[in-house]
Amino acid sequence: MHVYIEDLSKHVGEKVELKGWVYNSRSSGKIKFLLLRDGTGLCQCVYFKGECNPEAFEKFQDLTQESSVTLTGTVREEKRSPGGFELGAESLEILHRVEDYPITPKEHGTDFLMNHRHLWLRSKRQHAAIRVRHEIISSIRDFFNGRGFTLIDAPIFTPSACEGTSTLFETKYFDDKAYLSQSGQLYMEAGAAAFGKVYCFGPTFRAEKSKTRRHLIEFWMVEPEVAFADLYQNMELAEQFVEYIVQRTIKNREEELKVLERDLSKLECVKAPFPRVHYNEAVQIIQKENPNFVDGDDFGAPDETIISSKHDRPVFVHHFPTAIKAFYMKQDEKNPAESMSCDLLATEGYGEIIGGGQREDNLELLTGRIDEHKLNQDDFKWYSDLRRYGTFPHSGFGLGVERTVAWICGLPHVRETIPFPRLYGRHYP
Amino acid sequence: MHVYIEDLSKHVGEKVELKGWVYNSRSSGKIKFLLLRDGTGLCQCVYFKGECNPEAFEKFQDLTQESSVTLTGTVREEKRSPGGFELGAESLEILHRVEDYPITPKEHGTDFLMNHRHLWLRSKRQHAAIRVRHEIISSIRDFFNGRGFTLIDAPIFTPSACEGTSTLFETKYFDDKAYLSQSGQLYMEAGAAAFGKVYCFGPTFRAEKSKTRRHLIEFWMVEPEVAFADLYQNMELAEQFVEYIVQRTIKNREEELKVLERDLSKLECVKAPFPRVHYNEAVQIIQKENPNFVDGDDFGAPDETIISSKHDRPVFVHHFPTAIKAFYMKQDEKNPAESMSCDLLATEGYGEIIGGGQREDNLELLTGRIDEHKLNQDDFKWYSDLRRYGTFPHSGFGLGVERTVAWICGLPHVRETIPFPRLYGRHYP
Repeated sequence: MHVYIEDLSKHVGEKVELKGWVYNSRSSGKIKFLLLRDGTGLCQCVYFKGECNPEAFEKFQDLTQESSVTLTGTVREEKRSPGGFELGAESLEILHRVEDYPITPKEHGTDFLMNHRHLWLRSKRQHAAIRVRHEIISSIRDFFNGRGFTLIDAPIFTPSACEGTSTLFETKYFDDKAYLSQSGQLYMEAGAAAFGKVYCFGPTFRAEKSKTRRHLIEFWMVEPEVAFADLYQNMELAEQFVEYIVQRTIKNREEELKVLERDLSKLECVKAPFPRVHYNEAVQIIQKENPNFVDGDDFGAPDETIISSKHDRPVFVHHFPTAIKAFYMKQDEKNPAESMSCDLLATEGYGEIIGGGQREDNLELLTGRIDEHKLNQDDFKWYSDLRRYGTFPHSGFGLGVERTVAWICGLPHVRETIPFPRLYGRHYP
Repeated sequence: MHVYIEDLSKHVGEKVELKGWVYNSRSSGKIKFLLLRDGTGLCQCVYFKGECNPEAFEKFQDLTQESSVTLTGTVREEKRSPGGFELGAESLEILHRVEDYPITPKEHGTDFLMNHRHLWLRSKRQHAAIRVRHEIISSIRDFFNGRGFTLIDAPIFTPSACEGTSTLFETKYFDDKAYLSQSGQLYMEAGAAAFGKVYCFGPTFRAEKSKTRRHLIEFWMVEPEVAFADLYQNMELAEQFVEYIVQRTIKNREEELKVLERDLSKLECVKAPFPRVHYNEAVQIIQKENPNFVDGDDFGAPDETIISSKHDRPVFVHHFPTAIKAFYMKQDEKNPAESMSCDLLATEGYGEIIGGGQREDNLELLTGRIDEHKLNQDDFKWYSDLRRYGTFPHSGFGLGVERTVAWICGLPHVRETIPFPRLYGRHYP
């Protein structure tokens, strides 16, 4: 019976069939070791001369890295083996013998590896990072599904260039034009009025002509939106959410995080509540270490690091100046120069992973902001309808998945946090 | 304390606060009824003269459809009320009084409703359909996550026009071009070699210049791929999968399916195994009712209905002619004119919801097929690498989410199965 390596614990003492690829093999006289990879784990398969099929012993010498094989044997516990089990192997069938597998244990350049991403994914560290990504994405969905949120998939094709065309991808849409979504938020606001608590989770696109370790051209974002929630309830939701995904991931993916040599103690303390720092206070903290920082400006990556280095858990900065935030951000009624916005900065210099806040729910103020930003009122007809027909306080945020995966995995660059990264100048394979 | 209507059962006898929108209101002397909508459900709020705040009684006459309100009262069981509970209301605060809400109980044309999709989503039937969609999507993910599949998000930007450019969306990708994904399958094959069992689930794009009830320009597709699975194991996986999502949805969304007036008896019998019909046999069945059908052709919608009408559950058609299938479909070794393909036809004339099969794993045959289809070998360099480095039998399929939602909801048109549909000539709002 064909079983997967991750299920071996259920088959101790049984004869099973494994199918997979050669990760490694070595011989030492009467005993030969095949380290088999089947995508779900690694298993050491031991061929003893005299105990296994004689043909298997002979075929063994033909094995090369990544050759595909099937084999049978008996499962036994073995603490020293990866995964805790090994196979007392009997037979060996080579499905396909590989010659010159391009990715060898030697060092390869990033460009070479990215050109071979379809094969590189088989490597131990890449495999681990993508399994952590899987867990993070599952935990994101479970968090919202478990709290009564309704999934409202936002459209990718949008009719107008809402926030300027500089980083927008455009495509011909029959006789018209369409732009690829940079955020589902505006649609989520319509969703919140219909379903109360909603989220979208899909790919978003930014044509950024920059190569940084934090930017992808195509990245996944989850965006919850809650009717009748204010800025403070929004921060509470965000901190519970981040605690949940971090704690669940380090619990369920200990193995993978060990492969990635992640210092788990840094993640164990990610527990709510998170500290909250008003923008004005943040400015004072930054200026002590970066005297050139101008009050009123947005933070650069080094400024974010100054703030986050003061804390062992993620930190909220809230009430950014209205002038540097998007048109839909609600102004503070007590001081319209300040917005009801919040960003969440991850620990260890990983920077902003969440941006959000309370939305402008006053039709007149919203219309004014659209004018101030020199946007076209017609493009926002449907959006402002939400203020015409039963307007309501509401808040939400967006979390970038790849930055979160990089942070939790402790990876320096987002390019390894998604199966097939799209970067400035790269969309192959 | 603010509670959601769907949680009222946990608060019987308690005084709570509700926030939402006026769905309906009516007076009859000393008693006034407000039917409140908060996105999670409907609740009848009863104002008795003498028992409620006198101001509330006065404000009541200002209520209009979709005005946003907050109110307090005591939760009590009431079998005749929607949801089984009602509120003995005390106070009423009108946040925003709406004038002339555009969607009234009278009949509106489809185009009008689609132009007001951001508001139409608040209507009872639309609300129900999107909640069923949510459940179907959750069940899809839970099915694969629960069986050890790893999520491998496929890229949206792809470098080459793999299957002809006629239905492809193209965009400028910096100094190059990119095409929006029509399927993640090829990437899933790389994923299967790295992770064993994988799936992707994201939006896909087809620039179809046709208005049919089954086509969207932007639709969501889930595509599992399994290493070492053959066509028959693929059909087993597909039938278990479809049984799971149908049975779970009718169990968890009975309320919503009742709103949609769905005949559940038609769905209750969707249990594995599903019948399997060889293409040749299907041709004979079709030709009895449609003598013009040509052996060797693909099925039209009426042909699919002829097949599916013979069964009370979905039916597989397998072994389509190689000539009408994509280049990557494996040829049957016993008869290369037949492919190891399978489609799954839903019941009640809803047509194909799954397409899939076993993939060509022989490098030489694959290269030949790429030539036959006049495709560029260079574009498939990375894809054919999967046959160069440890090739392996593998199979998978794609399920279209919106067609599945239409089928399970019993909706005649896919446009109501996605929050913001993109159709030929429509990408607003």
